[in-house]
Amino acid sequence: MTTFERRKALIETRYEELVTRANIPLEGNGIYTRYAHPVITADMVPPFWKYDYDPERNPYFMERIGVNATLNSGAMKIDGKYVLVVRVEGMDRKSFFAVAESPNGIDNFRFRERPITMPDIDGNPTTNIYDMRLTQHEDGWIYGLFCAERHDDAHPGDLSAATAACGIARTKDLVTWERLPDLKCTSQQRNVVLHPEFVDSKYALYTRPQDGFIDTGSGGGIGWGLVDDMTNAVLGPETIIDPRYYHTIKEVKNGEGPHPIKTPKGWLHLAHGVRACASGLRYVLYMYMTSLEKPWEKIASPGGYFMAPVGEEYIGDVMNVVFSNGWIADEDGKVFIYYASSDTRMHVATSTIDQLVDYCFNTPQDGLFTGKSVEAINRLIDGNLPFLK
Amino acid sequence: MTTFERRKALIETRYEELVTRANIPLEGNGIYTRYAHPVITADMVPPFWKYDYDPERNPYFMERIGVNATLNSGAMKIDGKYVLVVRVEGMDRKSFFAVAESPNGIDNFRFRERPITMPDIDGNPTTNIYDMRLTQHEDGWIYGLFCAERHDDAHPGDLSAATAACGIARTKDLVTWERLPDLKCTSQQRNVVLHPEFVDSKYALYTRPQDGFIDTGSGGGIGWGLVDDMTNAVLGPETIIDPRYYHTIKEVKNGEGPHPIKTPKGWLHLAHGVRACASGLRYVLYMYMTSLEKPWEKIASPGGYFMAPVGEEYIGDVMNVVFSNGWIADEDGKVFIYYASSDTRMHVATSTIDQLVDYCFNTPQDGLFTGKSVEAINRLIDGNLPFLK
Repeated sequence: MTTFERRKALIETRYEELVTRANIPLEGNGIYTRYAHPVITADMVPPFWKYDYDPERNPYFMERIGVNATLNSGAMKIDGKYVLVVRVEGMDRKSFFAVAESPNGIDNFRFRERPITMPDIDGNPTTNIYDMRLTQHEDGWIYGLFCAERHDDAHPGDLSAATAACGIARTKDLVTWERLPDLKCTSQQRNVVLHPEFVDSKYALYTRPQDGFIDTGSGGGIGWGLVDDMTNAVLGPETIIDPRYYHTIKEVKNGEGPHPIKTPKGWLHLAHGVRACASGLRYVLYMYMTSLEKPWEKIASPGGYFMAPVGEEYIGDVMNVVFSNGWIADEDGKVFIYYASSDTRMHVATSTIDQLVDYCFNTPQDGLFTGKSVEAINRLIDGNLPFLK
Repeated sequence: MTTFERRKALIETRYEELVTRANIPLEGNGIYTRYAHPVITADMVPPFWKYDYDPERNPYFMERIGVNATLNSGAMKIDGKYVLVVRVEGMDRKSFFAVAESPNGIDNFRFRERPITMPDIDGNPTTNIYDMRLTQHEDGWIYGLFCAERHDDAHPGDLSAATAACGIARTKDLVTWERLPDLKCTSQQRNVVLHPEFVDSKYALYTRPQDGFIDTGSGGGIGWGLVDDMTNAVLGPETIIDPRYYHTIKEVKNGEGPHPIKTPKGWLHLAHGVRACASGLRYVLYMYMTSLEKPWEKIASPGGYFMAPVGEEYIGDVMNVVFSNGWIADEDGKVFIYYASSDTRMHVATSTIDQLVDYCFNTPQDGLFTGKSVEAINRLIDGNLPFLK
């Protein structure tokens, strides 16, 4: 057996074991269930995307194109399959999108034959694209909104000066994509999300206006604005629907996750909040709800985070991060929350619409002072005493 | 069995297993002994502080108030019990204090029925309180000194602008606390510690003057100052008794841990030192000793750190941190050092006063240059050669 044959068999066996591994639920706080294994890792990218299979050209069966991470994925259900549009990051630090599908949403995810070839914008190529939010809009198109990043040539001497715009593309099948012009607006934008329904006959966007490429600056919060035409999207006036706040889990930044899920009690939102600490930024997930009639009006705001890193989730390329830009609500009310940990791998957590709405309405709001937090615990203890005898 | 009944049984069983788990000593460098398990984690906070026990209101038995971490704890022995005043941090990022007790100091810690309700200061509520240092003072009171943090309203546009003051409270039983006015002084203060004895008939404080909320600025080091009256504490002139120093484990910041332990050879101090690196700040523990007659005069300064993170201690909400603000010296000379790792969980290490004093006087001082470090090793080897054949 040649080195080529031995190594090819090894790599393919490992790959096959990994993509067919059964996932195991881990019961926790009753609000959602984590699982023992990630759903997508860099090792689950097909070997034939990475290795040259010609024994003449590649006698050592060495990797030719390495994949660094599989992270922040958009999600939707198509043809009965749970589908992720994964942000795949190469060893060259460039991200692109690729579709992975599972029959059950919790394991057996496999990538389609090729990554997505996203058309570029003539004369203004994009250095990096990432964090797609998928929206099956009532206009009939599936939209993908993502961050489109380029060097900021206004600062030619600064290699790290960059601009973040909202890239827009649409598709019917996740295979062929029509790239549309980037969102036109007055500030840099990451984390832009298309609401699935028309509002006053317009398209509605969740936004995250920020002063600079990284800093949200003095403004920030999750915004809301309308757009007349997605083929030439110009953002109208933005209002902040979920602001940042001192000494909360969203002190430094926050941003909308995937588009909200429609429930009988209101729109259910998943978002991320960021605070600073001595080892950098800490990203956690939180939830809120808005009114069915006015999706820009908050009607529930459970205090604190919904999910923060645990165990190996703490560790990765960017430590201390959980992030979500994809979830799927099944017809029976089951919810699959797809989240990345530390910019490295994808996980799933499952819950139900009933439980998540219960969480939003029955978790005390953030009282903003330590004394209020203790009062809330004491109220809970007081209510529990009759049951504890 | 209903979901409520099944989940309640699961959560209570897991909790009971955790709080009764025996701890196991792990012998190390001979100076102190670490233990296999943390002594307090967020999962050891009683379920009835977190779950609504009414099956009508909470049919899924979901968590209503989540606890994120249990960290930097004050410590003392009362009525034969080893007692920690734990910094409990909720999922809302607000910290408060809660008492946990153990019969042996190394395991079986249990929280009392409720967290501490710390009285607030009229008209100036505290956003966050943390890192209490407990001192049984010879005036008869138990004092708790802690960091009291508020938004800095001088910078209304900056959500992260904060002020850190030394909060002061006193008690006889750790249940009922009398809040006293915050320490009046000219700079921001974290890590203020009350010396247990009067000095020149005054109260003596270890301080950590700093220019800003996070930055220690150009000054810094562990300070020492006197106060006439703890019910209206005004800090007199500060002198630096343990300065920061270039390219040591305390280059960026340092601060007193718990109050020093009185030994026949001098006051034994435990402190933390901070340096910067590419992944943020690194917090380690170090020791020093001061004179019995003049507690502000250093008489021993072992080089380098006493304890740094190992294994899982590296990982948590704020990576690469060990921090201590509580220890207990038993009558027989055994010392229980309570330290938090990465702002997430509490551990214990045990030693004796004899060993710690031996460590302080017989560990070479920091020579401040690489050549001096090699000379110190060569002196040790030279002394060892006769014993090695």
